[in-house]
Amino acid sequence: MAEVNLNQTIRCIVKLGGAAITCKNELEKINEENLETVSSHLREAMILGSCSKKVIGMDWSKRAGVSDISASLSDFGDQGQFNVDFSRFIVVHGAGSFGHFQASKSGVHKGGLNQPLVKAGFVATRISVTTLNLEIVRALATEGIPSIGMSPYACGWSTSERNVASADLSGVTKAIDSGFVPVLHGDAVLDHSLTDVLGVYDRPPTDPNAVLLREIAVDEDGSWSVVKPMLESTNKQVEITVAAHDTTGGMVTKISEAAMIAKLGIDVYIVKAATTHSLRALSGELRRHIPDDWLGTIIRFSKEVGQVNSSPS
Amino acid sequence: MAEVNLNQTIRCIVKLGGAAITCKNELEKINEENLETVSSHLREAMILGSCSKKVIGMDWSKRAGVSDISASLSDFGDQGQFNVDFSRFIVVHGAGSFGHFQASKSGVHKGGLNQPLVKAGFVATRISVTTLNLEIVRALATEGIPSIGMSPYACGWSTSERNVASADLSGVTKAIDSGFVPVLHGDAVLDHSLTDVLGVYDRPPTDPNAVLLREIAVDEDGSWSVVKPMLESTNKQVEITVAAHDTTGGMVTKISEAAMIAKLGIDVYIVKAATTHSLRALSGELRRHIPDDWLGTIIRFSKEVGQVNSSPS
Repeated sequence: MAEVNLNQTIRCIVKLGGAAITCKNELEKINEENLETVSSHLREAMILGSCSKKVIGMDWSKRAGVSDISASLSDFGDQGQFNVDFSRFIVVHGAGSFGHFQASKSGVHKGGLNQPLVKAGFVATRISVTTLNLEIVRALATEGIPSIGMSPYACGWSTSERNVASADLSGVTKAIDSGFVPVLHGDAVLDHSLTDVLGVYDRPPTDPNAVLLREIAVDEDGSWSVVKPMLESTNKQVEITVAAHDTTGGMVTKISEAAMIAKLGIDVYIVKAATTHSLRALSGELRRHIPDDWLGTIIRFSKEVGQVNSSPS
Repeated sequence: MAEVNLNQTIRCIVKLGGAAITCKNELEKINEENLETVSSHLREAMILGSCSKKVIGMDWSKRAGVSDISASLSDFGDQGQFNVDFSRFIVVHGAGSFGHFQASKSGVHKGGLNQPLVKAGFVATRISVTTLNLEIVRALATEGIPSIGMSPYACGWSTSERNVASADLSGVTKAIDSGFVPVLHGDAVLDHSLTDVLGVYDRPPTDPNAVLLREIAVDEDGSWSVVKPMLESTNKQVEITVAAHDTTGGMVTKISEAAMIAKLGIDVYIVKAATTHSLRALSGELRRHIPDDWLGTIIRFSKEVGQVNSSPS
């Protein structure tokens, strides 16, 4: 990774799961209702501390309707009301029903761009995912969020063994410094392990015995253990349970990735989008206290868990 | 500019004028017919020297039709037929009726991103131009060109006094090295000076006395002169005529920009898109000989003009 000190500039990185914002079983179909709710929640979270609640739409495209454009422009009369600091947010989204078809048909995740089918699949996948990215940018802009779509590949990102090998984040930091909200799309291939559930479970959520893991602590060596709920089985056994049910390896990968972020001192929330739970996570209230009626998974560096647990819960 | 030796990797940079690929007088409307013709011409130019004439579509999106997808995939049976080297091309396009409205309404070209209206205009302009970029990528992909859309801002480009002050071209060169064709969009604001005409004229093309400048030679000091046709007036007067009629400064800017490129030893052709003239320019045949029935403007470094003129014409 390029040496960019993200901690200084980022307030929050929000990853929107592909399953939450698209209709999973229909090719290239957006879940409009969820996307609207998510956009509205993001706006609420971003303008925290600002007195302005007025929404100034920033999608002035033909599809948004010409009447919108005039209305938007007249709203700028009192510009002072609009001086909201949206910066320090990054939005990352999965692909859902965009890109997966193209990627799996062509085997693009197996690499080999010198093969014609893989190369064509890369182009087709990117068209599909870019289409989704544009729609998310438009939804956020409609909520007055100054969003800027960005494509990993366009910025010189490359992957090696499925991990980001190099990343030039200068475009992202420049956008943030200018007060914009970068909207990045993830890898179309890897993003199909977590479905639209409340959080991380110890086994498939469809299993009646599945238990929602509410809080996971990460040690300095990167290993993790469940601290809430305190299950009858030992933590080691929970890990084994997770591994045993995780046939695609997706869940373990997700937790490990989250653990890597948590080790940097950044709390990770895995939560169902477009719900009160995601809204509360975005609001920051969970940093101080995790109420019992909040449903989701928090993954935190263990050094900081003690601090949080000392507050009444 | 970053130090990237483009000459080693680029065969051709094609700039598609906004007026050629969009319907100028209708908001966000693509000129489908022209775009299809241009894409087909580009394909012809790119596969020169290859025996394969088969088109393998690479737009597998829902809008392209599901039947297309299956057809495309079955075409990959004989992958050897498809081993075409599309690399070494870059496509740049203007904005036409995309982005101009949003840019002009918000005054985004005057800068000042700290102003709410300008910031919103930047977001709205980018949404509009990205929409066009995606449609061009899809049109090229439909013709089997492995195109990858790229946005200047996403890659850390910045402008100062309307010139590109810094550009990280590593994403572009990486795409080319991987055999893709980068499709970049230009600035939405500046791109409205040259209309959809045959080339550069000495005065507005609507003027009955307007003369098409067929060949312009650029000196080492960056100054330029018309070598074809040999006009009655001296070249100095032609320059004055151009300047006098160029009320927006757009034409002089275009010629100066082309002259800067020509000075690098790269021939610049300004030609009406989707015509036999643009196809012939793309084919490379004009490098050796400029036939009288070819209509357009060539801008070349004067050191190399002599060479060309020595061949029979």
